[in-house]
Amino acid sequence: MTRHVRRTGPAPTTDAPVRQGSLRAHNLALVFRQIVAADGRPISRIELAHQTGLTRPTISRIVDELLAGRLVTEAGPAPYGGAGRPRVGLVLSRQGPAGLGLDIRADCLAACVVDLTGTVRHLAFVPNPGLDRPADDVLADLAAMAWSAIRAATIENLTVVGATLAVPGAVQANTLVRFAPPLGWRDVDVGALLGHGIGATASARPVRTPPGAAASTAVLPVTVENEANLAALGELYAGGEELTDFAYVSGALGLGAGIVLDGRLLRGARGWSGELGHVTVFPDGAPCPCGARGCLQAYAGIEAILATAGGPPGGSPVADALALADAGSPETLAALDRAGTALGIALAGLVNLVDVGTILLGGSYSVLASWLTDRIRTELSQRALSTRWAPVEVRPALLGPDAAVIGGALTSIDRVRHNPSSWLLHRAAADDRNAGRPRTGVVAG
Amino acid sequence: MTRHVRRTGPAPTTDAPVRQGSLRAHNLALVFRQIVAADGRPISRIELAHQTGLTRPTISRIVDELLAGRLVTEAGPAPYGGAGRPRVGLVLSRQGPAGLGLDIRADCLAACVVDLTGTVRHLAFVPNPGLDRPADDVLADLAAMAWSAIRAATIENLTVVGATLAVPGAVQANTLVRFAPPLGWRDVDVGALLGHGIGATASARPVRTPPGAAASTAVLPVTVENEANLAALGELYAGGEELTDFAYVSGALGLGAGIVLDGRLLRGARGWSGELGHVTVFPDGAPCPCGARGCLQAYAGIEAILATAGGPPGGSPVADALALADAGSPETLAALDRAGTALGIALAGLVNLVDVGTILLGGSYSVLASWLTDRIRTELSQRALSTRWAPVEVRPALLGPDAAVIGGALTSIDRVRHNPSSWLLHRAAADDRNAGRPRTGVVAG
Repeated sequence: MTRHVRRTGPAPTTDAPVRQGSLRAHNLALVFRQIVAADGRPISRIELAHQTGLTRPTISRIVDELLAGRLVTEAGPAPYGGAGRPRVGLVLSRQGPAGLGLDIRADCLAACVVDLTGTVRHLAFVPNPGLDRPADDVLADLAAMAWSAIRAATIENLTVVGATLAVPGAVQANTLVRFAPPLGWRDVDVGALLGHGIGATASARPVRTPPGAAASTAVLPVTVENEANLAALGELYAGGEELTDFAYVSGALGLGAGIVLDGRLLRGARGWSGELGHVTVFPDGAPCPCGARGCLQAYAGIEAILATAGGPPGGSPVADALALADAGSPETLAALDRAGTALGIALAGLVNLVDVGTILLGGSYSVLASWLTDRIRTELSQRALSTRWAPVEVRPALLGPDAAVIGGALTSIDRVRHNPSSWLLHRAAADDRNAGRPRTGVVAG
Repeated sequence: MTRHVRRTGPAPTTDAPVRQGSLRAHNLALVFRQIVAADGRPISRIELAHQTGLTRPTISRIVDELLAGRLVTEAGPAPYGGAGRPRVGLVLSRQGPAGLGLDIRADCLAACVVDLTGTVRHLAFVPNPGLDRPADDVLADLAAMAWSAIRAATIENLTVVGATLAVPGAVQANTLVRFAPPLGWRDVDVGALLGHGIGATASARPVRTPPGAAASTAVLPVTVENEANLAALGELYAGGEELTDFAYVSGALGLGAGIVLDGRLLRGARGWSGELGHVTVFPDGAPCPCGARGCLQAYAGIEAILATAGGPPGGSPVADALALADAGSPETLAALDRAGTALGIALAGLVNLVDVGTILLGGSYSVLASWLTDRIRTELSQRALSTRWAPVEVRPALLGPDAAVIGGALTSIDRVRHNPSSWLLHRAAADDRNAGRPRTGVVAG
């Protein structure tokens, strides 16, 4: 399976004095960004010189560095209208660094590897036996999946530079899960546990590494992020250049939102933004397990829709709800209406407060979108002030249930896209250590 | 009147190739930022060299440019522990560029000038005869005020570089007021009208400029911004380094919020963020003039508090409400309770969606804070998920009713703080044009 996804958003920046060393890194990043921005179109060295204003010798030196570091490769001739011999074009490498994403879902665990071009190169699932398992068991399964993905990447000459796990809950400092109600996790240092788990798996099952080699002790950098946030990043990459401002509504294990403004994820002061499921819709309404009354989740959460729809709790509940709605079940239709209205009220608040012009319905909501969208639009047009002069678009998200795991993988590779010099430095150090040994597929970050 | 305010937030950035010209600008901005960050403490050339890593000759050249351009001045000796003669310290100039802020309030129009240090150098008010006047009349009054402020600045050897007007409504592209219900304005290009108004006033009443001089035709750059947003920026500057993430709640002509994350204003996709007054609190509740039902404004707007409190509509209504509450008026206390509860429900939604740990009650709410805060806190602790592990602070804002006009002036001067080189270029061009003529107090931006 291959999906092309694309990155938009502000370029990396520096706040350092510009001297020789950082000048080189700055210019290398500048050239690399042109190749990233070309989005798969081969770009010639002459074009790079034109675009950046750098001299031809400087461009040649930088391109040599990028080629040696497996960040770019030479493709066929670049499109060229002039006379003379055709120019060799440069594209992002499909055999260089790669990012790993991991996701916990109701029915499965997922792993995904994307390369520098944003192409999905590996996408795997294992069944999730249940949501009530201890965190250690889930994380051990995820570590094993991660290692399988790293091995698969190695076979394709990719080097995984980091892993990002999607969690349905509030995460602090990219590692500590403060509260993930669907999993029953509270204050679990998931980043550290998963990092050690992957390291232990690597030690137990080394990949093409001779006995005594040091590479298996390298700890893969692991970050943890809210599921809706990562799914929003996946949609941001997939959506192309026009999609830079939107709210992604996740109907997965939890009900959450990922808010993107100007091509950047809005994480909030402490990383706890997007708790859409606990926005109050009816202040005196139904009690929520969080302790409050009238939370959106009590009306529009997938479980709430299924419960009031009288659907079966097992199997593929969303498909069942969809089948019941298609069959005209009054209870299901009423539940979907209630959910759409409640979603619309809460999303109108979101539009009033953070001002987005596009709502993407993700996860299960993308499947149910045709039953929800009208109600959401009605509430938005009544309650979001700016819809008086600028309507809000409501539509299903693009990537379906894989948005979060793809977003996680893209987040992992993004550090190289933002800072290619750091990858080159790590490469050089790893090459020194591994001189004469086969590649191991993992670099420490 | 003098207030010291201070700037926090990310530094300016570039995405250009670094060559000789931009390298000079980059390093000049870098040195200037050290002087800005010293926050009034004199800083020596040697210290600048240490902090930036630039050479002493480079620092000397840059400091000479900053001195010539009136961006910095030499102060007394910098604190110095070593031997040898005391070093001369550098501080931001109080006789260089300045920013102008303007504000429309229920009872008055306000103008404010701040210098580079963030110190308020001029703060003036004229009565506002009424909120139902045509936009042209209000803007003509504001243009006259602006010109008076520019003249006052000139007398103090300050050069006003731009004006920023606070408007209680939704503004597009920093100039077009889409919808300002308290003023009855809809789709008014306030930026252009006010810019021309100031230019016309300048032509009619030139300041110390010989006949035929070109300076009075220079159009002062005018930007327009939501009142709550500018007030939030004022509070950001005034709050010191710790205050980088908060929501400011404006209880002025309108009920709005200015949201600051990581030292930056959250403007939203189109600049219409913070419409707190039209967040739904009770979906089937009281009708709002906007056309929706149950908007926060219908419960917590100053007019709603005064109406249900039975207070007089004229005079100083907030002072009257406070007096009635202090006297134990049951209707007033009930109205304040209702307002506090509604504010708490809406602010819990804001905390859930954008994640701020601090709420600042501004405008009239700062005066009424002691009657509102408990109810707000109660709702937040019940309805904002993160308060389970990280409480939200609720407190009155610092700057009182002048927050927006000060925030506007600071916004105007910020372009120089962010990009000192552009000011130096403008200065040089203006000096060429004005050779032999006295300073006019206005530069085109």
